[in-house]
Amino acid sequence: MFEGAEIGAHLDKQEYEKALPELRVDLVNAQYDLREANFPVLVVVVGDDRRSVSEAVNQLNEWMDARYVGTQVFGALTDEEQRHPRFWRYWRALPGRGELAIYTGVWVLATIGERLTDAIDDKEFDRRLSHMTRFEQALVDDGALVFKFWIHLPKDQLKKRLKKARKHEGSSRLNALDAAIYERYDEVMKLSQQLMRKTNVGEAPWQIIESSDDRHRDLTLARSILAGVSAHLERARAGAAPQLPVAPHTPSPNLLGTIDLGAKLSRPEYKQQRDALQARLRGLSVRAREQGVASVIAFEGRDAAGKGGVIRRLSGAMDVDDYRIVPIGVPTDEELRHHYLWRFWRQLPRDGRMVIFDRSWYGRVLVERVEGLVDEATVRRAYAEINDFEEQLVEEGVLLLKFWLHIDDDEQARRFEAREQTPYKKYKITDEDYRNRAHWGEYERAVNEMMARTSTELAPWRLVPANNKGYARVDVLRTVCDGLAQLMGEES
Amino acid sequence: MFEGAEIGAHLDKQEYEKALPELRVDLVNAQYDLREANFPVLVVVVGDDRRSVSEAVNQLNEWMDARYVGTQVFGALTDEEQRHPRFWRYWRALPGRGELAIYTGVWVLATIGERLTDAIDDKEFDRRLSHMTRFEQALVDDGALVFKFWIHLPKDQLKKRLKKARKHEGSSRLNALDAAIYERYDEVMKLSQQLMRKTNVGEAPWQIIESSDDRHRDLTLARSILAGVSAHLERARAGAAPQLPVAPHTPSPNLLGTIDLGAKLSRPEYKQQRDALQARLRGLSVRAREQGVASVIAFEGRDAAGKGGVIRRLSGAMDVDDYRIVPIGVPTDEELRHHYLWRFWRQLPRDGRMVIFDRSWYGRVLVERVEGLVDEATVRRAYAEINDFEEQLVEEGVLLLKFWLHIDDDEQARRFEAREQTPYKKYKITDEDYRNRAHWGEYERAVNEMMARTSTELAPWRLVPANNKGYARVDVLRTVCDGLAQLMGEES
Repeated sequence: MFEGAEIGAHLDKQEYEKALPELRVDLVNAQYDLREANFPVLVVVVGDDRRSVSEAVNQLNEWMDARYVGTQVFGALTDEEQRHPRFWRYWRALPGRGELAIYTGVWVLATIGERLTDAIDDKEFDRRLSHMTRFEQALVDDGALVFKFWIHLPKDQLKKRLKKARKHEGSSRLNALDAAIYERYDEVMKLSQQLMRKTNVGEAPWQIIESSDDRHRDLTLARSILAGVSAHLERARAGAAPQLPVAPHTPSPNLLGTIDLGAKLSRPEYKQQRDALQARLRGLSVRAREQGVASVIAFEGRDAAGKGGVIRRLSGAMDVDDYRIVPIGVPTDEELRHHYLWRFWRQLPRDGRMVIFDRSWYGRVLVERVEGLVDEATVRRAYAEINDFEEQLVEEGVLLLKFWLHIDDDEQARRFEAREQTPYKKYKITDEDYRNRAHWGEYERAVNEMMARTSTELAPWRLVPANNKGYARVDVLRTVCDGLAQLMGEES
Repeated sequence: MFEGAEIGAHLDKQEYEKALPELRVDLVNAQYDLREANFPVLVVVVGDDRRSVSEAVNQLNEWMDARYVGTQVFGALTDEEQRHPRFWRYWRALPGRGELAIYTGVWVLATIGERLTDAIDDKEFDRRLSHMTRFEQALVDDGALVFKFWIHLPKDQLKKRLKKARKHEGSSRLNALDAAIYERYDEVMKLSQQLMRKTNVGEAPWQIIESSDDRHRDLTLARSILAGVSAHLERARAGAAPQLPVAPHTPSPNLLGTIDLGAKLSRPEYKQQRDALQARLRGLSVRAREQGVASVIAFEGRDAAGKGGVIRRLSGAMDVDDYRIVPIGVPTDEELRHHYLWRFWRQLPRDGRMVIFDRSWYGRVLVERVEGLVDEATVRRAYAEINDFEEQLVEEGVLLLKFWLHIDDDEQARRFEAREQTPYKKYKITDEDYRNRAHWGEYERAVNEMMARTSTELAPWRLVPANNKGYARVDVLRTVCDGLAQLMGEES
């Protein structure tokens, strides 16, 4: 891979200065066109040539209109970053549609360094690469334009630079890391190539730029970005490519039909078990905080299935500082400008805390699907993205539980009627509720398919019979308690 | 103050259980009405009775629909919080219109503790209280409903609790802090009263709740909130009170007229000084990062005054990781739901970094005023809020510089014309630019008044003659360099 890039490319000063004015005008104009466009641009600039990466990114900022370039330098983790899942910091800094961001820093090199020093093994190395790939794939699938540049310095050039650096100690920007790269150059290159090969997403391939010559390096980088953005703007203007037909799904098994809705607890049984479980949950949440165990609990279910009541029994058992409830409604305009998972990533709990989602990222394959807001291809993709999202959480030690609270048609009718009578305004039934009820057939198909596609070994769906409120509440409380206990190695 | 609250109020169980069902229904209904309302609710619950504060807030969350209560527990500072101005964490967690948040934790008690142990002196104590007051005043003036509850335990009760706690060591939630409060009870109360007196904002007065009896405590708290929210909803429904007439301002001195627009540099002078200053700025920004000195630089000026060019000369001298440029345009819907300063607070730099605002919080008293988007009373208030905002930054060691780049009518006409010819799309002149130009008389009055009202000793306006671009760029570069040098105790 690198051999092909080591061509000793060189650009003389005259040629460079001749090309520059037009390039800069074109770059800034492309930026301005981009601001009206409906996609974000992410430019990743990393590489084995640490100094060049930093210089090239500075140069890009100078050439472009820096006011509209969001540059993120990912270095050592801050403590807030450290206390969240690994990809949290990459998600929360993502550009919105019409925006351009540059991601730079040493995080890729750091991963290689960890593998090189055996801080992580091959399996962990591969796991991280696979998350990188899927992260980029999700962005690309959402319409983002993603560039990935690897700035590469041939070994003999690095040797020269280090020699020169030793002469001018103090003023050089090379440091021990660069010397370490030279020491184990061949191994670093081998791992770098492995990394690039494994993360070569189709629409976001790596581009290697040789950095022996600064002018060639910077001009190549800028020109690649310009060409890519222009072409993407052109494509966007021409309109989307015709959707390929999606093969119809074979019907999914009717998992909802397997739920025994007759499960129930008497009032005294309920109270006694609830009190015991709430006391247990309080203790577990205190220890989870001490041990830094984070939890993500998501609730889905039919209207009036009792999500609010269940959530209240959970939160009521804990200290307010230990949990946060996130109701998912209509997205804000900032959220709409990003990938649909962005709003969930930015709500993830830090270590030791619990976030309870009242409705969740499954909205994409439920309400958005049934209402026809997304096409079938997007739904298929969402299953994979959701599975990956959840896998990342679980692999990083987060307790992830997702509950489907289920009631049958008759019970829903009874509850709707009861709500019409209740003094709680929140329970007033709207036309929309009845509309959803009328469409239950479609919802049911969507729910069954969702379960079939996203009930994974790491993150299985918990189906909760909820015709009897007490049974549902106790069932959820127990599952959460058992989940926490298991994760912390306590006996259930 | 406390004497009046120590009435040994008690509520028997029967009465409590009788009142509860209706209270809960009313609370939840008020929450639901609030979600449609156009104001935020902030409930501050603090006090000398640490355990009660925490219990009462938990109880409130249980009674209300916890999904729509944003509870923020402010404890020890996280490192990101530590690296930002003191009030950053309170601003960024603020509820939007239609939302309710509870602020709790020990931050008020901690401030009293610091004063008690002489970690801060009277002056610093007063300074903090004054910022608290002005923070709350700004929210109230923006239409927010602010509650402030002080949960208070009489001395003899605290004594009893501590005695009991010693018997049940391990299971009690009382700790050394509570013992310390008892030890110096009278001093703590004296400082608490001082704090309450000085922060008693007219529309956000302190309410003291005695905590000897849990039932009385929780019911009083919930009832106060319910009554306040209901009354505020009623007022909002009835429409705003008629605006009091605002006395016309006496005309402000024409500061803009004093700028010598003839100032200029020849091309070689400019280049030479620019290069020298950029090299100096690079060094200063590296040291600023090492020393943790943050900078906030704001630019205002007439259209085509050259803000972009000046900003580029600043940013071009620094490493991309050391600055961030924030262009201020139309606010997002999340921003519109908050106080207008919220969007600036959340963009503040952490220690060691610089944030450059391309247009700023002055939009409120410039474009929003001239376009008639805010009334005169709001403009008057904005001056005070801005002065306080800037004072806080400066007092916490942030370098704050605000520049007005000035060009005259002829120069603007020349630049508009030149832009019509330029290949940069961003410079294309729109009808709006000509409209602004036609309204310059009104803008000029607004600018002069803004300068008169917000050019404070701590944060003076820097008027930059900008008819000559080179002169303006060098002038700004030099002011930024000198500002950084001075703050870091270096020689200019």
